[in-house]
Amino acid sequence: MRVELLAVGSELLLGDIVNTNAAWLGQRLAAAGIDVLRSVAVGDNVARIAECLTEALDRAAVVLVTGGLGPTQDDLTREALALAAGTSLARDPELERALRARFAAAGRRVPELNYRQADVPIGATALPNAAGSAPGLRLELAGGVVYALPGVPHEMETMFDAVVRPDLRRLAGDAATLVSRVLRTAGLWESAAAEALTAEVDRLEAAGNPTLAFLASGGQVRVRITAKAASPDAARALIAPVEERVRAALGPAVYGADGDTLAGVVHRLLLARDETVAVAESLTGGLLGAALTDEPGASATFRGGITAYATPLKAALLGVAEPVLAQRGPVSKKVATEMALGARDRLQATYGLALTGVAGPDEQDGHPVGSGYVGLATPSGTTTRTLALPGDRALIRAYAVVAALDLLRRHLAALSPVAGSREADG
Amino acid sequence: MRVELLAVGSELLLGDIVNTNAAWLGQRLAAAGIDVLRSVAVGDNVARIAECLTEALDRAAVVLVTGGLGPTQDDLTREALALAAGTSLARDPELERALRARFAAAGRRVPELNYRQADVPIGATALPNAAGSAPGLRLELAGGVVYALPGVPHEMETMFDAVVRPDLRRLAGDAATLVSRVLRTAGLWESAAAEALTAEVDRLEAAGNPTLAFLASGGQVRVRITAKAASPDAARALIAPVEERVRAALGPAVYGADGDTLAGVVHRLLLARDETVAVAESLTGGLLGAALTDEPGASATFRGGITAYATPLKAALLGVAEPVLAQRGPVSKKVATEMALGARDRLQATYGLALTGVAGPDEQDGHPVGSGYVGLATPSGTTTRTLALPGDRALIRAYAVVAALDLLRRHLAALSPVAGSREADG
Repeated sequence: MRVELLAVGSELLLGDIVNTNAAWLGQRLAAAGIDVLRSVAVGDNVARIAECLTEALDRAAVVLVTGGLGPTQDDLTREALALAAGTSLARDPELERALRARFAAAGRRVPELNYRQADVPIGATALPNAAGSAPGLRLELAGGVVYALPGVPHEMETMFDAVVRPDLRRLAGDAATLVSRVLRTAGLWESAAAEALTAEVDRLEAAGNPTLAFLASGGQVRVRITAKAASPDAARALIAPVEERVRAALGPAVYGADGDTLAGVVHRLLLARDETVAVAESLTGGLLGAALTDEPGASATFRGGITAYATPLKAALLGVAEPVLAQRGPVSKKVATEMALGARDRLQATYGLALTGVAGPDEQDGHPVGSGYVGLATPSGTTTRTLALPGDRALIRAYAVVAALDLLRRHLAALSPVAGSREADG
Repeated sequence: MRVELLAVGSELLLGDIVNTNAAWLGQRLAAAGIDVLRSVAVGDNVARIAECLTEALDRAAVVLVTGGLGPTQDDLTREALALAAGTSLARDPELERALRARFAAAGRRVPELNYRQADVPIGATALPNAAGSAPGLRLELAGGVVYALPGVPHEMETMFDAVVRPDLRRLAGDAATLVSRVLRTAGLWESAAAEALTAEVDRLEAAGNPTLAFLASGGQVRVRITAKAASPDAARALIAPVEERVRAALGPAVYGADGDTLAGVVHRLLLARDETVAVAESLTGGLLGAALTDEPGASATFRGGITAYATPLKAALLGVAEPVLAQRGPVSKKVATEMALGARDRLQATYGLALTGVAGPDEQDGHPVGSGYVGLATPSGTTTRTLALPGDRALIRAYAVVAALDLLRRHLAALSPVAGSREADG
């Protein structure tokens, strides 16, 4: 079954927001074995939205629209659906009642504008919104089906999972399934990964199924293996030998697969050993700690962190020796080591992980932008890694977090071939 | 002049990555007064990419393609351009030489695959890539112009600014200009903002120019005023009175405009008073510090932070009294206050800003997910704000950062009607 995505909102075209809804839906649909052919963003203009809808329905059986269902005057998806269907809007008394009840529960009256959210194109069905006030819409049109979902991500996601996904499963029947397996690596450039896999790529190109694709972002390279087969199990059986060869070719750079995150893998490795980590940061300002606490359950392995942004605080809060700071400067191997030792000691963790460096845009004490050090303090000693990171301030900070997590990950994976470290050992 | 965006890459449709390039280009083009009509993402398929190109050229004078120019076998933009133009690829000897020189400088030989990056559709011009190895392409086609730019954001951005933008300026000539002004608010829900501006919206809808749009994301609401006129100055003159009325209607919730960030405004307010801030975090794990160090120059006002994720560290590192922790629990108003005082004191800052709460997915000691406290310690006392935040773990953490920054921002703005606080005072 072919699906297209249509995101509505001038803010997307103006770049005020990024179309994260398309990525989220793409992941969900791929997981369900459904091909997304095209993803379009269009502005708040009734005629243009309707035109995009009609075109998409020419190519695809299902169109998922996101956005334009809010209460404000620039929310025009309802009107565009009606236009494309050659019908008009009618106020739905039940939606009107639900709206009143929802606001009453919060002790508020319904703002006049919000009543627009009770308007429905004639022939469409309203879809319940468990997470917000904008109902979704389902409309059969030109031989296809259009689902209009709210633009607010968590409302869209809730509605997709509750209503649209089960519906699509039924519509898709038992067509061929597309299964993807993503292997995630750190510490490897994209061209190095591609070269290591040249033979595999050639072999797969000749066969045509599965396929292999590379993706570099945020200092990590992902390798996606995609197979098409009659069932998910058959697709997975096609993927397995390819995955084995890719893992063998890339070695310890492979830290995980699919939804794994580098921080999540570090967390599981620590958890398996009943160990903890504490961080000391400078250029990243807290991002390393933020990454380690992104996912639930972090408190079992993450003690906390100290961001010593002002140089004197590296001495006061982390115990870096004043003469070391004075002689070597805050961006030095020795300071990274002492920061890691300080974090380990003062936050009572098994490991201390430290980052110091130059995020830019200006060089610092003769150190170029992108240079820095990761320090790791373990129960048995310390180790450091020198950084020379490309990109702008945001990229350098993101790469530095990856480099720090990867240093700890490789240390733990080498130590502990125990439960949870399979991915890390490749 | 009408422009369309075409992003190439199956990883976009599969949701492996988010199309941030479209947002970045949208911002740059809007700033140049150029309308983006549509933004499309398509997979790694030569025929489908060529089809999207042809369709886009039917509607727009210029198509900006991003991605598909890398060295790996799934990079197919070169081939698709040749197909759409009815021509073939030829290896460019100059690009080949440049490739060799680039790799030689890094002490490496050119991987065989990378030579694909020297292939150019006959009739196209290669565009220099100052930030990476993939050259861009410029091709006149079907009465329009196609620019193909690399998918790696900083390479794409560098090439756009260096080559494409000046080119588009020339192409656009002196057509009507579109100017947008975005007012940024914190501490206000979208429907409250829309209601406060109902009269203004009605007035503008009657006139048709400028237009007003609302956008809620990450706990902030933005109001965009867009005007069309013969010149940027004329457009700005249309915007000015609208901006004044919007600011009056929304009051102190307006913290800035256009590219301002909440953290940036806090930074400038602190800088104007020669003051500093230090943070104490728990549920946000470092995100508050990361936000305050997002932009260059942060070291002038940001001292650092302590993330006391493990409860006992709130006592050890921040001096929160043990009995308070034991009796009130880590998620309490009193603990937020003591964390703020601890950060202020131990990091020697003018202000201490603290966050404690429940990010979920599970409630904690009877506190529901999304509940928490911001604490602020100032030279003259302390203040706290109770949080009841909606959404999932990531949203709650993002909202908490906004709430904390906004508490400090409003405190500083009320204190100091000095340079830099104009936006904050509205």
